[in-house]
Amino acid sequence: MRCSRCREQAVINLRAHRLALCEEHFVERFLEVVERAIRRYSLMRRSSRVLVAVSGGKDSLALWDALTELGYRADGLYIDLGIRRQDYSRISREKAERFAEQRGLELRVFSVQEEYGLSMPELRRGSREVCSVCGIVKRHVMNRVALEGGYHVLATGHNLDDEASVLLSNLLRWNTELAARQAPRVEAWHEKLRPKVKPLCLLTEKETATYALVRGIDYVSELECPFSAGATSIALKEALNRIEEHSPGTKLYFYTQFLKHRRIFRSEKPAKRECRSCGFPSAGELCSFCRLLLKSRLRGEKRDN
Amino acid sequence: MRCSRCREQAVINLRAHRLALCEEHFVERFLEVVERAIRRYSLMRRSSRVLVAVSGGKDSLALWDALTELGYRADGLYIDLGIRRQDYSRISREKAERFAEQRGLELRVFSVQEEYGLSMPELRRGSREVCSVCGIVKRHVMNRVALEGGYHVLATGHNLDDEASVLLSNLLRWNTELAARQAPRVEAWHEKLRPKVKPLCLLTEKETATYALVRGIDYVSELECPFSAGATSIALKEALNRIEEHSPGTKLYFYTQFLKHRRIFRSEKPAKRECRSCGFPSAGELCSFCRLLLKSRLRGEKRDN
Repeated sequence: MRCSRCREQAVINLRAHRLALCEEHFVERFLEVVERAIRRYSLMRRSSRVLVAVSGGKDSLALWDALTELGYRADGLYIDLGIRRQDYSRISREKAERFAEQRGLELRVFSVQEEYGLSMPELRRGSREVCSVCGIVKRHVMNRVALEGGYHVLATGHNLDDEASVLLSNLLRWNTELAARQAPRVEAWHEKLRPKVKPLCLLTEKETATYALVRGIDYVSELECPFSAGATSIALKEALNRIEEHSPGTKLYFYTQFLKHRRIFRSEKPAKRECRSCGFPSAGELCSFCRLLLKSRLRGEKRDN
Repeated sequence: MRCSRCREQAVINLRAHRLALCEEHFVERFLEVVERAIRRYSLMRRSSRVLVAVSGGKDSLALWDALTELGYRADGLYIDLGIRRQDYSRISREKAERFAEQRGLELRVFSVQEEYGLSMPELRRGSREVCSVCGIVKRHVMNRVALEGGYHVLATGHNLDDEASVLLSNLLRWNTELAARQAPRVEAWHEKLRPKVKPLCLLTEKETATYALVRGIDYVSELECPFSAGATSIALKEALNRIEEHSPGTKLYFYTQFLKHRRIFRSEKPAKRECRSCGFPSAGELCSFCRLLLKSRLRGEKRDN
C-alpha cells in the first residue's frame, strides 16, 4: 500500500476517505483534522489555557501531543483513582508522567485516595455500572482542578468511536435529554464549570492509535481497565465497527450529521443549584459525587463496626 | 428449560421478557402480541379485507397464519419476480401455494414477467442496490393488486428485526424524512393507495421463525435470496443482534420508544401527482417503477440491436 500523496510506504488505509497515508502525511492530516474540529465547533482559542484530562491511554496522550504540536497551551491532569488490580493506576500514572517529562509539559496529578480517603474500588462497591461511577468521580475532579487552576477549557480525548457509540446508546434508549446535550463543546452552565471540549471527535480510534504509535507515545490500553470488561459501550462499539466495515464512513457521517440535526432534541436547562457539601453545581441537595462519597463512607463505617 | 407458565418443556427462551415458553403457550402469546400490535397501532378492523404480501418466507407465512387464526379475512398475494437462479422464485411460489392449499386460503399470484415482459434479474441489471429495485417492484405490484382486488389494507410480514434495522439505517444516515414516515401503519396518502400495516412489528425474527416451526409451516429462507448477499440490512441486523445479546430487550425498546418520539422528525407531505404511464401516485412525471421498466426496456433494445 502506497501513500496517496507521495507514494511512500503507507502506514494506514482510511477506507472512509479512500486515502492511504505514509507516516509524515498521516501526522500532517491528523493535526489538520484536530485543528478543523477546533475551528468548526469553536472549541477553544489560540490563547486559551487548556487542561487536558490524561488517563495514560492513547487517546488522551495523542490529544495532549497534538494540541502541543498545534501550539496550544495545554497542561495535563492525571486523576489517580487508586485501582490496584493489575497495578492499573500506578502503570497508567507512570505513562502520563513519562510523557510529560519527555516533552517538558506540566502534569497535575490528583489522587482521589489522598484527597478523599477513598479509592475507586471502594467508591464503586455496591454499584453495578462501574463506568458510570468512574465518570462521576472524574467529572467532579476535572471541574475542581480546572476551576482552581484557572483554566479556560477542559479537553478530553473522546474520539469518534466514543462519540458515535454514546450517540447510538442515547438513540437506542431514546434518551433525548442526553442526545440534546451531546456535542464537541459542552458549554459551562454554571460559573464554577468550564466548557468541555473534544478535539478528537472527528478521528476514529484506529486513527488515534496509529497517531500514538507513529509519534512514539508509550500508552496503557484502556481496554486493560480491570473494571470495564463487559461494558455496554464495548458492545456498542463492536456493533458500529461491524457496520463501518460494511459501509466505511458511517461513523463519521452518523456523528457529524447528528450535530446538524441535534436541535430536534430538546433539553431542559439544568437547575442552578449548588451542592451543600462541595459547592459545585448539582441537580439535588448533594451532587452525585458527594452522594457517592457519603454512601461509600457509610458503608466503610458499617464494615468497621 | 421449562415453560414459565405450565412447567412443560419450553421451546423458546425470550430473554427480553425473561420468559421461557412451551409450544402451546408460545403460540398463545404470539397471537396475543399480534393482536396487541393491531389494536395499539389501529392497524385494521375485524371486518377489513386484508391482502397479505406473501414471499414464501417465514415472516409472511407466519403473518398470514396468525391473521387467519385470529379470525381476520386475509388473502395472500405472491409476486413472482422470475428469479431463476437457485430456482428461487419457483420454490418460494410453491411454498406459498402449498400453504394456501393446505389451509383453504385464497392466494393471488402475480407474475412480473407475464405482466411486464421483464423478470427481476432483467430489471435489476445495472443497479447496485438490488434490494431497493426489488422494493420498488413489489410496492408497485402490491398497490395495484390491492386496488384492483378491492382490499382495505395491505399487510406485510416485517418483524421487529426488520423495523429496528430500518430505523437504525435511517438514523445512521439521518434520513429524517424516512424516519418520520416509518410506522406500523403507513396511511394511504392518495386514493389509489391502501394503508400498509405491519402486524409482526413487535415480534423478533427468532419469534416468527419459532412460530413457523411450531405451526408446521414449510417456508423458504429469505437469506437464500440469491441477490441479497452482502446487503446493508444484514450488516445492520448483525450489529443489532450483537447489542441485543449484551442487553436483551434493546430492539423492542428502541423501536417502541421511537414510535413515541417519532413526531420530532418532520416529513413533507408527498405531492399528489400521478404517474403519466401507470396512473399511480408518483413524485415525478414517471413513478420509480415505470422509470425502472423504461430503463430496462431501453437496455434490452440496445442489446438486441
